Amino acid sequence: MPRSRFSGVLSTPRVDVIIDMGNPFLNLSLDGFLKIGTVGALRVAAEESYDCVRAGSISTHKAEHTLKKMCKEGAYWGTVAGVYVGMEYGVERIRDKRDWKNALIGGAITGALISAASNNNKDKVMVDAITGGAIATAAKFLNYLT
Amino acid sequence: MPRSRFSGVLSTPRVDVIIDMGNPFLNLSLDGFLKIGTVGALRVAAEESYDCVRAGSISTHKAEHTLKKMCKEGAYWGTVAGVYVGMEYGVERIRDKRDWKNALIGGAITGALISAASNNNKDKVMVDAITGGAIATAAKFLNYLT
Repeated sequence: MPRSRFSGVLSTPRVDVIIDMGNPFLNLSLDGFLKIGTVGALRVAAEESYDCVRAGSISTHKAEHTLKKMCKEGAYWGTVAGVYVGMEYGVERIRDKRDWKNALIGGAITGALISAASNNNKDKVMVDAITGGAIATAAKFLNYLT
Repeated sequence: MPRSRFSGVLSTPRVDVIIDMGNPFLNLSLDGFLKIGTVGALRVAAEESYDCVRAGSISTHKAEHTLKKMCKEGAYWGTVAGVYVGMEYGVERIRDKRDWKNALIGGAITGALISAASNNNKDKVMVDAITGGAIATAAKFLNYLT
């Protein structure tokens, strides 16, 4: 019987939140969601900070808007990453191999799922699946290179 | 004195084109350009093939258009990847460390360069730099995860 354990570790310079869901699939997805969600939220924060510096003023209204946008975009990036990581892991388990084709298939499934969830029509879903696969493959290659 | 050697190896299942420019920086950039350029071109090919299958017809005009689009998009993806790989390598040499911050800095420089090269104004360049850094960091994290 799988037990769900919850343990939080937070150290300042290296942000490392460890939450054990008792299942490698869920762990990976959640890890992806949290990490990439943070990156997405920070991107908005950086962009809006630059906006404030440029405009030379900051208002409560603006701060509220930024926070909302951070949550929204963080959740979006996190969802995409969580689905992708889960899918890639699933494909790896099914194919029993570890190569760039996992990224291709995982990216394609992620693109299709996210696109289908956004209520796009069938053609758009296919095109997004192709784009998702291509981006995931490119990212994989780039990280093998360096 | 650096010698430029040229050697081509092409094996069918694993595409591996090795061109030695006699300099690790150039080698990496070229490798990134070729690999990611291929991915970008194949993405267009897949997308246009799907279009043909759906429409149920293929014409010479369409094939010519596809080929042109493949070259254009392949070159674009390849350029972005080549600049990014070169920048990340450069940052790694300067910082003498190998972590996700290289990806962040490399991605930001790449975003700024590509944006500046497209004749965008200063604000757009900054925003693109932030986005580039965020995407590169996210890709790095995702590939560490899986």
